[in-house]
Amino acid sequence: MTKKNTTIYDISKKLNVSVATVSRALNNHPRISQETKELVMATAKEMNYKQNNLAKALKSGETKTVGVIVPYINTNFFSSVIRGLEEELSPHGYRVIICQSHDDAAIEKKQLNTLLHTQVDCIFISISRNTSDMEYVKKILTTTNTPIIFFDRKKDIPGISTITIDDHKGAYAATEHLIQQGYKNIYHFSGDQNLEIYQNRLNGYMDALTAYKMPVIKDNIINTGSSIEEGISAMKAIWKRKIKPDAIFSASDFTALGACKEIKNLKLKMPQDIGVIGFSNEPFTQFMELSISSVDQTPVLMGKISGNVFLESIKDNSSGITIEKKLVLTPTLYIRQSSKRK
Amino acid sequence: MTKKNTTIYDISKKLNVSVATVSRALNNHPRISQETKELVMATAKEMNYKQNNLAKALKSGETKTVGVIVPYINTNFFSSVIRGLEEELSPHGYRVIICQSHDDAAIEKKQLNTLLHTQVDCIFISISRNTSDMEYVKKILTTTNTPIIFFDRKKDIPGISTITIDDHKGAYAATEHLIQQGYKNIYHFSGDQNLEIYQNRLNGYMDALTAYKMPVIKDNIINTGSSIEEGISAMKAIWKRKIKPDAIFSASDFTALGACKEIKNLKLKMPQDIGVIGFSNEPFTQFMELSISSVDQTPVLMGKISGNVFLESIKDNSSGITIEKKLVLTPTLYIRQSSKRK
Repeated sequence: MTKKNTTIYDISKKLNVSVATVSRALNNHPRISQETKELVMATAKEMNYKQNNLAKALKSGETKTVGVIVPYINTNFFSSVIRGLEEELSPHGYRVIICQSHDDAAIEKKQLNTLLHTQVDCIFISISRNTSDMEYVKKILTTTNTPIIFFDRKKDIPGISTITIDDHKGAYAATEHLIQQGYKNIYHFSGDQNLEIYQNRLNGYMDALTAYKMPVIKDNIINTGSSIEEGISAMKAIWKRKIKPDAIFSASDFTALGACKEIKNLKLKMPQDIGVIGFSNEPFTQFMELSISSVDQTPVLMGKISGNVFLESIKDNSSGITIEKKLVLTPTLYIRQSSKRK
Repeated sequence: MTKKNTTIYDISKKLNVSVATVSRALNNHPRISQETKELVMATAKEMNYKQNNLAKALKSGETKTVGVIVPYINTNFFSSVIRGLEEELSPHGYRVIICQSHDDAAIEKKQLNTLLHTQVDCIFISISRNTSDMEYVKKILTTTNTPIIFFDRKKDIPGISTITIDDHKGAYAATEHLIQQGYKNIYHFSGDQNLEIYQNRLNGYMDALTAYKMPVIKDNIINTGSSIEEGISAMKAIWKRKIKPDAIFSASDFTALGACKEIKNLKLKMPQDIGVIGFSNEPFTQFMELSISSVDQTPVLMGKISGNVFLESIKDNSSGITIEKKLVLTPTLYIRQSSKRK
């Protein structure tokens, strides 16, 4: 359906001059006569030639743009990382363009290609829950010069720096807090176990239980995604059990919110009958009439550090060094009404 | 600081062949010998030449990417418009890249240039609160072929299609609802009056009062932005007045949320002592223990229709017609606990 745009090939054909001449004329090259320049310009205008990054790219080879791919733009966590990235990079003249993968590996791959084609100087990715094939990422690293940096949701790939938080520590602290509040039967809403962040949160939960000599019960680990709806249905399901939970550590604030809605629906008292703690410190956890405890992931800082890793890599690169960095930030536990019963 | 990337000029210089030859070799052009192709490819690899959209653009002149600029990505309204846009355009092979202006005209202008340089096929913009100079937008329309479409926050510029909602109607319905609930002294938190959407909401508020023979009192119109903090401080300020409001129609859900927080702080009963209604139907309005009434702007539909206006314009364009469309959607009033006292 789309009409093809005029290219410099079309102009070259029309004027019967070489593509190089057209390109140089459009770039105001000194070796091209004023007469030819004017002819090319006039023809380009006549043919509705779109002055594009072609000329600029040919001239400078530099675009000063970075790309970022996130599962979704509309969670506080990802939008805050992007804000941190912009704050770090904009003083250095970089602009940030954003793509969302809708948490789907196939779209993520397409968005990666989109960003490569727009010639960004670096691509920051937080991978999708179903991303498994990393071959094309490795291929990008070997066939292009475009650096890739993973943040939060990552896989370990040689040559790719990563910026994460210590999810194990955050989950451990959240679970320990529930234990210290006197909860005895603490369930875990686990998030997608294809992602390292959720594996680490699960491990932190199990390790805290073990450290306090409490049993790790497989049935108490509920495999959820990270939506409100999954939180509601998980809470509904576990409340029908004989042995009911008296606390939930959710790997996601959204499933925690779903649990809280269902807890209200079941007319249970929070934090007395049941305690809840989430993960991410999404703003709504504070907005709630009964505020939800959560683990803050310092997303703005994560964005700033991600940007800084890129800026440093340019410096390193120009002295011929490639350094792969693995940076881990420490999360902060926020104790609020949903879990504070002492 | 940034190291310049290798361009096809560098390869051309190194091999002492024309730029066109390098370009054609990289594009696998039939007129170039296999030997030359291999030489160019090897040199490109050796020089770390970044295979970029250059070659593709030269070949096809088409990128199949659209750009969108929004003030912020992290409100439900804007992220939902973007979702609608993606849903409409992705079946047609278009990818969406997103930039945020941080509600600042200077950044918006830079992002516009970024998108133009990445050769997007269309730019969708919801303008910043301080955008006033539209000369550069007009310049883009006359000097490039890139269509621009405004959604929600717009200015009227010949040649630019706009997709908005009927803000006047939404504000009128919200105010009428408060009147019908028996509120007598209805204040308005107005939002930035540089933006048409907020002008229209103010007019809808005033027209509803007038229609019901209630006085329009200048002092009851509070000039706020659209943040939670501004809602809190506005509520604090007006509650110190002799004649206090018994209801607030806020042009923004965020200032409405701020008002609700301060109402709770003042130990007032909602909706008995004071009623509140917001605008945008942000998800938190439902999450609240005491849910907030709001006006839904059907953002996903707005995104879909925006995408469709672009797709139709391509069709029209190929038959030589340029149609400027002005589409206005009808908002929906959601009545919740914060304003329902009957």
